[in-house]
Amino acid sequence: MTVRVGVLGATGAVGQRLIQLLEPHPEFEIAALTASDESAGHPYRDVAKWRIDTPIPEEVGEMTVTATTPEAVPDDVPLLFSSLPSTVGAKVETPFCEAGYVVSSNSSNARMESDVPLVIPEVNGDHLEALEIQREERGWDGALVKNPNCSTITFVPTLAALAEAGIGLETVHVATLQAVSGAGYDGVTSMEIIDNAIPHIGSEEAKLETESRKLLGEFDGTALADHEMEVAASCNRIPTIDGHLENVWIETSEDPSPEEVREAFAEYPSLSLHSSPEPLIHVFEDPERPQPRLDRTVGDGMAIAAGGVRESTFGIQYNCLAHNTLRGAAGASVLNGELLVEEGYV
Amino acid sequence: MTVRVGVLGATGAVGQRLIQLLEPHPEFEIAALTASDESAGHPYRDVAKWRIDTPIPEEVGEMTVTATTPEAVPDDVPLLFSSLPSTVGAKVETPFCEAGYVVSSNSSNARMESDVPLVIPEVNGDHLEALEIQREERGWDGALVKNPNCSTITFVPTLAALAEAGIGLETVHVATLQAVSGAGYDGVTSMEIIDNAIPHIGSEEAKLETESRKLLGEFDGTALADHEMEVAASCNRIPTIDGHLENVWIETSEDPSPEEVREAFAEYPSLSLHSSPEPLIHVFEDPERPQPRLDRTVGDGMAIAAGGVRESTFGIQYNCLAHNTLRGAAGASVLNGELLVEEGYV
Amino acid sequence: MTVRVGVLGATGAVGQRLIQLLEPHPEFEIAALTASDESAGHPYRDVAKWRIDTPIPEEVGEMTVTATTPEAVPDDVPLLFSSLPSTVGAKVETPFCEAGYVVSSNSSNARMESDVPLVIPEVNGDHLEALEIQREERGWDGALVKNPNCSTITFVPTLAALAEAGIGLETVHVATLQAVSGAGYDGVTSMEIIDNAIPHIGSEEAKLETESRKLLGEFDGTALADHEMEVAASCNRIPTIDGHLENVWIETSEDPSPEEVREAFAEYPSLSLHSSPEPLIHVFEDPERPQPRLDRTVGDGMAIAAGGVRESTFGIQYNCLAHNTLRGAAGASVLNGELLVEEGYV
Amino acid sequence: MTVRVGVLGATGAVGQRLIQLLEPHPEFEIAALTASDESAGHPYRDVAKWRIDTPIPEEVGEMTVTATTPEAVPDDVPLLFSSLPSTVGAKVETPFCEAGYVVSSNSSNARMESDVPLVIPEVNGDHLEALEIQREERGWDGALVKNPNCSTITFVPTLAALAEAGIGLETVHVATLQAVSGAGYDGVTSMEIIDNAIPHIGSEEAKLETESRKLLGEFDGTALADHEMEVAASCNRIPTIDGHLENVWIETSEDPSPEEVREAFAEYPSLSLHSSPEPLIHVFEDPERPQPRLDRTVGDGMAIAAGGVRESTFGIQYNCLAHNTLRGAAGASVLNGELLVEEGYV
Repeated sequence: MTVRVGVLGATGAVGQRLIQLLEPHPEFEIAALTASDESAGHPYRDVAKWRIDTPIPEEVGEMTVTATTPEAVPDDVPLLFSSLPSTVGAKVETPFCEAGYVVSSNSSNARMESDVPLVIPEVNGDHLEALEIQREERGWDGALVKNPNCSTITFVPTLAALAEAGIGLETVHVATLQAVSGAGYDGVTSMEIIDNAIPHIGSEEAKLETESRKLLGEFDGTALADHEMEVAASCNRIPTIDGHLENVWIETSEDPSPEEVREAFAEYPSLSLHSSPEPLIHVFEDPERPQPRLDRTVGDGMAIAAGGVRESTFGIQYNCLAHNTLRGAAGASVLNGELLVEEGYV
Repeated sequence: MTVRVGVLGATGAVGQRLIQLLEPHPEFEIAALTASDESAGHPYRDVAKWRIDTPIPEEVGEMTVTATTPEAVPDDVPLLFSSLPSTVGAKVETPFCEAGYVVSSNSSNARMESDVPLVIPEVNGDHLEALEIQREERGWDGALVKNPNCSTITFVPTLAALAEAGIGLETVHVATLQAVSGAGYDGVTSMEIIDNAIPHIGSEEAKLETESRKLLGEFDGTALADHEMEVAASCNRIPTIDGHLENVWIETSEDPSPEEVREAFAEYPSLSLHSSPEPLIHVFEDPERPQPRLDRTVGDGMAIAAGGVRESTFGIQYNCLAHNTLRGAAGASVLNGELLVEEGYV
Repeated sequence: MTVRVGVLGATGAVGQRLIQLLEPHPEFEIAALTASDESAGHPYRDVAKWRIDTPIPEEVGEMTVTATTPEAVPDDVPLLFSSLPSTVGAKVETPFCEAGYVVSSNSSNARMESDVPLVIPEVNGDHLEALEIQREERGWDGALVKNPNCSTITFVPTLAALAEAGIGLETVHVATLQAVSGAGYDGVTSMEIIDNAIPHIGSEEAKLETESRKLLGEFDGTALADHEMEVAASCNRIPTIDGHLENVWIETSEDPSPEEVREAFAEYPSLSLHSSPEPLIHVFEDPERPQPRLDRTVGDGMAIAAGGVRESTFGIQYNCLAHNTLRGAAGASVLNGELLVEEGYV
Repeated sequence: MTVRVGVLGATGAVGQRLIQLLEPHPEFEIAALTASDESAGHPYRDVAKWRIDTPIPEEVGEMTVTATTPEAVPDDVPLLFSSLPSTVGAKVETPFCEAGYVVSSNSSNARMESDVPLVIPEVNGDHLEALEIQREERGWDGALVKNPNCSTITFVPTLAALAEAGIGLETVHVATLQAVSGAGYDGVTSMEIIDNAIPHIGSEEAKLETESRKLLGEFDGTALADHEMEVAASCNRIPTIDGHLENVWIETSEDPSPEEVREAFAEYPSLSLHSSPEPLIHVFEDPERPQPRLDRTVGDGMAIAAGGVRESTFGIQYNCLAHNTLRGAAGASVLNGELLVEEGYV
């Protein structure tokens, strides 16, 4: 039994990645593709400027794109993946949830709202329980679940592994070296980035600092409470295609050795969901790893790569890396969809 | 009146940069070039694999290279610039100092020895006073002065500006995005770095952490004392040709506003030495600057570029950048040579 | 005595380069800046998104931008530099010429029209004589002169040098490796070009094939006749910032040796115009040169670099390179302006 | 029944690729690994600096490396893959052939010797018949078979397809844009190639010009005769990791339309060997394809990608691309090994 699913914003860069992941997915069947009003009514092949390195799946290419409204999407498509620009997402996701659709969204709007679960399944899948409150308060039959920003997803699983091992997180400094694909296909021009780096990505630092605390926070049955650690982020764009690399320094209430940290990473449990990798965190001994080009596809692009775990002046420091358009975007939404199905929300 | 100078290790990458800077220098005259025994006795043009984008100066090309020994260098060449591999520098610099030569060295050996001044002229030129102790203790007629590592030079002037403005530095986190030229011409292969980044540069982090404290420390007339701030560094290599970019977070005893920090940077005094830029620190308002390709040549490659000064979770954070082979290596040694002459040590 | 000049399309990428070249120019004074209707009436500083690595010249930043119409430009500005998109140039250049302005244009429209001189001053400055016919036939008081495409400018001077040396050109094959700046600031995204190359640049090949024959053709007093050589071009975009590199094979009626070809290049005369380099063609013996990053600035970016001259299966082959936004675009227009003044057309 | 095989020069870059391809190969079993005398006697894991992005196969890592001499390799290993530097290959391949081993070699030595088959199985597998003459003349029990240079392999299949379609080839001009991996792991430094291109690769042009004529030549039962077409090549290194892109112009005795050329490419038969792709030549309609990063892995890196087929001033021109370390090196040798087994030479 497969679940019929739709993609909101199917012609965009993440929309294309979603189709690439959903088409061969054993649990899902692509049954609806939406885009802007101009694209509605046309075959997907004619309106998508396809930029994925595998061809458009034959059947998907022939599907007729619809408008991005609840009326245009068939009722028997209970689960929708959303990769809309956040300004659009902010307008259209609510009507879909009101109309009874469950929306697994990669868009940044509403991520920090108190009754919207922001979820990495292996880290805080239990936050889905907040959907009861969401439905009650908002009067929705559907539901809205978010995955975090790609740069947040890269380092939060390592913090979760430390928390799981009983290591109390107090402060986190994180510097990111982010790939150009994170800005979308046209987001960074070649003139901006060849032989260069840009030490600023608009509003990205705030996402790492706030989303990470929500992800590691607790749901006590009535509300989501942020974790009390404090996080400071500094974000950079560098000339890599895919894979966000991050330098992390942590201060903790304990004084774990690098070996204990490596063990905490290696032993952090994954899930049996289709898109969950085993292990979740791949730990390198070589201090030169992880590297974006070599390691972004560990676990089919769904694992976290960590390395360089060492004593720091203030505690521990290490590096981590994840594939920003797989684990960090489209794959994150698909994985949340898998969890929503398994937990009975769809 | 020009000072006759020599270059130890003249055929190497930094040696070539030294020649490029010294040849047109109004205060210096190149009078000796040394290299390995195999190169000795040959015209410089025949033994240097010249890789600078300006041609070999005509007269330099015809100079005869000598061995790297005090006997081979004329006595009337009082000042020597050294850019030897640190293992070689550790062996040969001492004999030169014993023989009465003043050595301004970019090599990393001996930088942390207590009676060896580690100097950025605009920051701690007064540390040269320790040369009295050096000469007395070691019985040298000559002297040995070091400049710091290129990645250290990039961020220390910004810290010095804060200290100068009365802001008490307590902790510093610094992440570096370093250019490939920092590893020497053959140091990073293209297979290693295209579409990639490497989160490790051997022993580089320790240099930032220890050299910075020595540079900001005080000489009390008898000994050099480290500054008490604590520094944690994380170093990355990225695909840029020249220019090290650094993300810095500081915690201070005061609570300066970003505006106060920008003012401290902009008002930090430079020197009237030939190679000192005016201003020393170029402050950008645009949060996307500084960027390596756009800003590495501010102040003819001898200035520090700073930007993105903003409130951080823990204090202040900002970015800075310097040209690693000019301000960070050859230019740093030449500048130290200028100070040694001005202060009467040559 | 300086000539008052204007820039049509002053806010664009080439417009900015034109301002950078014209502001310090000893013969020209910037007296008019035009742009789109939305920008008209505002200070240049407020409407130009300045991307040149030197700052906006102070006085230029404060000039008020006007609309791109003859009425909006003062009458005492006789010479205009045009860097408009070709569709815009096709509409507005004619009214300016009718109104008496002399237009030196980098836009691709009208380049192949029979009474429009397409000029590289050192190659075919005498083609300006066709302006008599242009003025007579079109009833213009002004005049329209074009410079070729950046990729055409790179190899045509080498062909002209061979023709000057009496070597009869029969066939030319040319493959280009073009820098991203040739497509404008936003022309090539980083996702398209990092770790990649694109073997197609729309309509570029036809430009090399037809413009080159017009440039080497003759003006017999009444008409411009194309050179009879045949040219086949293949164009590629590669991940370089500036500098177009080209591989050239030629078949000739003679059988020149590589040494004769090198001599023809080296001895080809330059002009005494302000922006003409001396020599025009810089010849390298090292077969690995010219290279874009090392050699794009020879002759302040206005020279042609050539190297690798060798016997080929079919005749001679060699490589050449020029800075595409200096010699190949803005500098080309400025140089044509200098020639127009010297020849009395302004 | 698998064939036991060995790798000569197993620690090098191509040697590692060979192991990556041979380990999971259904027809081969790795039974011997040789390297320099210093490595002999040690486990492979300890002496290979492994740089492939998949891990060292467990069993291979534990194999003991031997010297590269016939005595050191077990007699029951009939087929050896050689990826030695050509100077080493020139010395050691002959003793192995004398001792009865069949050597499938990627090394450039001996490629043009008249009784050494230079083979691309899909193109000229029948050239293996020359082995009879080789064995007779040289008195070998073994045999020596070569695959061409990576840049040769990229364009020759397209020429073969035209010949197969009855199109008489007369002249070929080919410009290459080659990836850095073609020079080996340390072959191109990052300082040489970032934001740059190098219009020269030592002796590469001669390889394209001569190997191509041998490959398309005929074996008449007694000797290999070169094809009579004439080829001129110009080779460039560009900043791509993998995938050689080539621009090709052809003049033919017929006057084929671009459509006929595309058909000839698409219909050119592949083989049923394990590593032969189906189709051999993948034809793109989009003139911007093939591109190295997008298309180097077509046919698991063993196919040729072609596109941009268009009329040229002199005939037809098009672009082609192949993965230089798979189809162009290690994969080429493995494929020749498969053919040698199928044809009964092993």
